[in-house]
Amino acid sequence: MQQWYFVAALLTILTSSQGILTTLSQSNGGYKYDYATVPFLAEVFKLLVSSFLLWKESKSSNHPQMTTEWTTVCLFPIPSIIYLIHNNVQFATLTFVDTSTYQIMGNLKIVTTGILFRLFLRKKLSNLQWIAIILLAVGTTTSQVKSCGESSCNSLFSAPIQGYMLGILSACLSALAGVYTEFLMKKNNDSLYWQNVQLYTFGALFNMARLLVDDFRSGFESGPWWQRLIDGYSFTTWMVVLNLGSTGLLVSWLMKYADNIVKVYSTSMAMLLTMVLSVYLFSFKPTLQLFLGIIICMVSLHLYFAPPSSLVDSPVTTKILPKCVDDVSVHLSTDSSHKVSHP
Amino acid sequence: MQQWYFVAALLTILTSSQGILTTLSQSNGGYKYDYATVPFLAEVFKLLVSSFLLWKESKSSNHPQMTTEWTTVCLFPIPSIIYLIHNNVQFATLTFVDTSTYQIMGNLKIVTTGILFRLFLRKKLSNLQWIAIILLAVGTTTSQVKSCGESSCNSLFSAPIQGYMLGILSACLSALAGVYTEFLMKKNNDSLYWQNVQLYTFGALFNMARLLVDDFRSGFESGPWWQRLIDGYSFTTWMVVLNLGSTGLLVSWLMKYADNIVKVYSTSMAMLLTMVLSVYLFSFKPTLQLFLGIIICMVSLHLYFAPPSSLVDSPVTTKILPKCVDDVSVHLSTDSSHKVSHP
Repeated sequence: MQQWYFVAALLTILTSSQGILTTLSQSNGGYKYDYATVPFLAEVFKLLVSSFLLWKESKSSNHPQMTTEWTTVCLFPIPSIIYLIHNNVQFATLTFVDTSTYQIMGNLKIVTTGILFRLFLRKKLSNLQWIAIILLAVGTTTSQVKSCGESSCNSLFSAPIQGYMLGILSACLSALAGVYTEFLMKKNNDSLYWQNVQLYTFGALFNMARLLVDDFRSGFESGPWWQRLIDGYSFTTWMVVLNLGSTGLLVSWLMKYADNIVKVYSTSMAMLLTMVLSVYLFSFKPTLQLFLGIIICMVSLHLYFAPPSSLVDSPVTTKILPKCVDDVSVHLSTDSSHKVSHP
Repeated sequence: MQQWYFVAALLTILTSSQGILTTLSQSNGGYKYDYATVPFLAEVFKLLVSSFLLWKESKSSNHPQMTTEWTTVCLFPIPSIIYLIHNNVQFATLTFVDTSTYQIMGNLKIVTTGILFRLFLRKKLSNLQWIAIILLAVGTTTSQVKSCGESSCNSLFSAPIQGYMLGILSACLSALAGVYTEFLMKKNNDSLYWQNVQLYTFGALFNMARLLVDDFRSGFESGPWWQRLIDGYSFTTWMVVLNLGSTGLLVSWLMKYADNIVKVYSTSMAMLLTMVLSVYLFSFKPTLQLFLGIIICMVSLHLYFAPPSSLVDSPVTTKILPKCVDDVSVHLSTDSSHKVSHP
């Protein structure tokens, strides 16, 4: 199962395009459409695609495995509920800290994902992999360090304590949603498409509820959401919807066949790719910190995924295993085959 | 020989004090004394200490080993010559780039030291150790990234190409001096003090020559150097001399009994320590990039010096060595001692 490399690479490219498409879909620095409709339509898109694939699978020779017990189905709205809480925590955090401090604190979710991944999914990570995860968070943060000469210049260290607490809570909730979804997808051998159908049905419902709540808050001054659903949509906006839906489907696939850490690497690399592309597309100034951040994240990627033997080979390997090597040679010599001659 | 840990830690503390003492020895942002006299007096101090220790060693039961052949002695002025060339290259570089860009490029010497260490001293480094060296350079650079709101705001990427070429040359010369000194100290089993006496005699002579050249350049307007040697010296200035001399002696010791990489780690950690102390002593603003730089350098230190087995232990070790472990268990079972039961 080395397919996940390609899925992760594709997720990186699509997530990176998401930022660029969203910027391109703006006019005069603002949205002509209601941005809250985008995730709703993306959920609908994912639901349609998954339903179609499930239908195709059911037509094929081997029927898809589908658990329809209430005790299993009722687990599927939970990710949506976590995201709902997360959104509200995010809103509360932003009353204490500015956007760039919030963005910097967002990198904490890389570390919290590692921790919850270890605690809840009981996956063991080597010390080197822990170091790699910390480096990934440090690398993404480095790339976001404010350049000299930038206009807003608030110190990261001057926010009230509540801001930091909420930032940490936010990082934990974000990680929890990811880890919980992985648990859900790997819980049984149900068809991925069936799991997706359940996940996205609740996703679509929760997003619909959010649009309705927005309507009530604004006193229906611009009409109910279904009447203004695609108002102001351009071709680029549809691309944003399609792209968001596709990244969602790829994330589901990774949760089932790879894991949260792979997803975290994909999205972190996507953030750096977006910054590099912005240098070309929107003539952003390339900064030293972006360059350093990219090196740190590449090192992290290598430390996490490269086979450990390739990292600690010469000349240290011999030091780790003197006893073992001795034993082998003794064993082989009684076997009268003298092939091992390394010192 | 675990003594090098303590020597390296002491070198870190003294090197860090050097920056702080030098700042304290200034009055109104300038020097009241001729700064070029400081390294000369430090060389004299090192020469006196080494001579005394050599004399004491020669009085003891086991006589110090001293090679006095011309072919060996003539190798000792070479580090001074390299430093002389380095100083001139540095001067030339600064005509193309500003001081902060030069400082940033200075971190390259960490990587060039690794390369020359590998090439000239034929020490093998594992992939993990190479990664650690790159991370050290990245970490020190990260800590030096200009903060937003700093006054001078030149882009690192806008210097003329000659500036970068000279910066690279400067990093190579600096590394060469270190690697050559290590070669010199480890070349034979001569007494460290005898090697030091040779090294510092030439060091004192070259520094004296430099003072003389300065005098000629200024047309002796403030008199010959020996008449104004300690003009304007305060207690702090004498501490700067003593401190510089002591760090030199520690570096010599490390070159003989440890290596250049240990020295590079000591001085890099000292730079970070100076920045942290400056936050307290000179009420500098702590920056996010300093915090990130410290994490990166700590990770680098751990990756370089921690035993590789402690990094890649669980659960990956079993994967690397399935064959080996099988062989051991077979071997032990024929030995009828069933102690190995790890899966």
